[in-house]
Amino acid sequence: MVYIGIDVGGTGIQMGVVDEKGQIIAKGAIVTRTDIPFEDQVKAMADCALETLEKSGHTLIELASIGLGIPGIADQKTGVVPFCTNLGWKNVPLRETFQKYIDKPIFIDNDATVAGLAESVAGVSANTDSSVFLTLGTGVGAGIVIRGKVWSGFHGVGSEVGHMIMEIDGEPCSCGNRGCLERYTSATAIIRMAREAVAKHPDSLIMSLCGGDPSLINAKMVFDAAREGDEQGLKVFRRYARYLGQAIATIVNFFDPEVIVLGGGVSKAGKFLLDAVREEAPKYCIYKSMPISRIELAELGPDAGIIGAAMLGL
Amino acid sequence: MVYIGIDVGGTGIQMGVVDEKGQIIAKGAIVTRTDIPFEDQVKAMADCALETLEKSGHTLIELASIGLGIPGIADQKTGVVPFCTNLGWKNVPLRETFQKYIDKPIFIDNDATVAGLAESVAGVSANTDSSVFLTLGTGVGAGIVIRGKVWSGFHGVGSEVGHMIMEIDGEPCSCGNRGCLERYTSATAIIRMAREAVAKHPDSLIMSLCGGDPSLINAKMVFDAAREGDEQGLKVFRRYARYLGQAIATIVNFFDPEVIVLGGGVSKAGKFLLDAVREEAPKYCIYKSMPISRIELAELGPDAGIIGAAMLGL
Repeated sequence: MVYIGIDVGGTGIQMGVVDEKGQIIAKGAIVTRTDIPFEDQVKAMADCALETLEKSGHTLIELASIGLGIPGIADQKTGVVPFCTNLGWKNVPLRETFQKYIDKPIFIDNDATVAGLAESVAGVSANTDSSVFLTLGTGVGAGIVIRGKVWSGFHGVGSEVGHMIMEIDGEPCSCGNRGCLERYTSATAIIRMAREAVAKHPDSLIMSLCGGDPSLINAKMVFDAAREGDEQGLKVFRRYARYLGQAIATIVNFFDPEVIVLGGGVSKAGKFLLDAVREEAPKYCIYKSMPISRIELAELGPDAGIIGAAMLGL
Repeated sequence: MVYIGIDVGGTGIQMGVVDEKGQIIAKGAIVTRTDIPFEDQVKAMADCALETLEKSGHTLIELASIGLGIPGIADQKTGVVPFCTNLGWKNVPLRETFQKYIDKPIFIDNDATVAGLAESVAGVSANTDSSVFLTLGTGVGAGIVIRGKVWSGFHGVGSEVGHMIMEIDGEPCSCGNRGCLERYTSATAIIRMAREAVAKHPDSLIMSLCGGDPSLINAKMVFDAAREGDEQGLKVFRRYARYLGQAIATIVNFFDPEVIVLGGGVSKAGKFLLDAVREEAPKYCIYKSMPISRIELAELGPDAGIIGAAMLGL
């Protein structure tokens, strides 16, 4: 049997036909159009899915299920998506609508959750008891996998690690609260800290890397400056590693999964970040002499969304 | 079959013979002695367990297993207790030693975890998919139950909700870190906030309730003053409810269990506290219009430790 995985993004929709081991056999893609009705969006996805299936050399009979990873949440019981802001969806019957075009079991989950599942099937957390996957990007998302199954909570509103409160009355968050974890551990946090640093120290290498325009600073520039030994770059990097270490310790102290996986744009800093975080996290875990969750870098890259969505049906 | 549950405390050790439904058939107790060798402590527990079994009218053949809830953690694979500070234990082979006296399956887990399990078998969270039980006492402990089974993490160091970081560089904690959740949501936190309040406002009712000696303030006095409408009591109470609401929102945003149960000394404030926390928590959850974990008061009281320890073997 084969599985179709659809990674629904705000600008593009990637999909693939995937085998039981999480290997992609064929790929397809369409542009995300928010200017057409929901029903037409779903039809375009289904058409592309059928084409991709044909390209893979498999038939509908061999297709076990279709999974969708969305930048939002889904009601697992009804298949209704209450929110998916980037797509303009609110309370849309995604499963039911999709099944009008392809009558197969349809599974829907959050994109970070799905990427975490992919790592647990075919990536760095394969064959583990439990894992928490973190997407360190503009915000911070997460995917929790317990014994091979995704855990999005009883009401489907869990695994929102980015919105755990890390600082009472702290930095304002786009969600309306203050002090959310993602305000300290996202790429956005790195950029904010770097802008504060260059305002006081315009001689920093970060300033050269952004061409003198702090509005152009990105996380890579800051970490590149840190690697070069730039004082402000290093300060921001160390502060970020400490915050991320504290966030990871909070996950260990509460949930203690076998593995914590770092994914998303910031994780591209690789070993430089991993080494720093592995040094910081244990300082904030309660049992200093006990083993804690392994901290690893994600392995699958951009295909994780397709693979994980497909594996929802496994 | 029957199950023996042993609630190992720093001053007393309570035990009971419990049936499959979590009902206590017979009870026993000994005083905790830290002045005798570990081996003798275990023998005293085993002797009392055998007497209690006899009192219950059951025999060794009908005894399925023995469970121990300890104020520390245990290695589930080896039955070794790496830490149990109040008992003076460090790396003691608790399971192996106990089995010298009673050769039955022995299960060991943290006392808060065990109390959470008890509520999930015979208390307020019975028949739920998942629950997080909070003991709001001198510190804050927790028990996570997923589909009838306790979850203490892959390495056994999880469910330490009290040591999730809630405030970067916040209040110093006895664990050596700063800003741990229990610094804001324990009885100790209430007392600290009340002492600060009466130092500035000695005319507060709290001051009369403690007989003019702030070193005698306890959480009940503060909440009693709040109930009477005392301004300082109300301020501390509202601040505490906000912190506890934020802590609960953090648990919802990460884990989203079906139920969150409030136990421990502070929860004796009952509906007064429950109503306030039910109002505060949703404010800090990310999805404002979605259902979240039910928040409930623990039902079982001091017997939870015995029942939950026994139910480890179920």
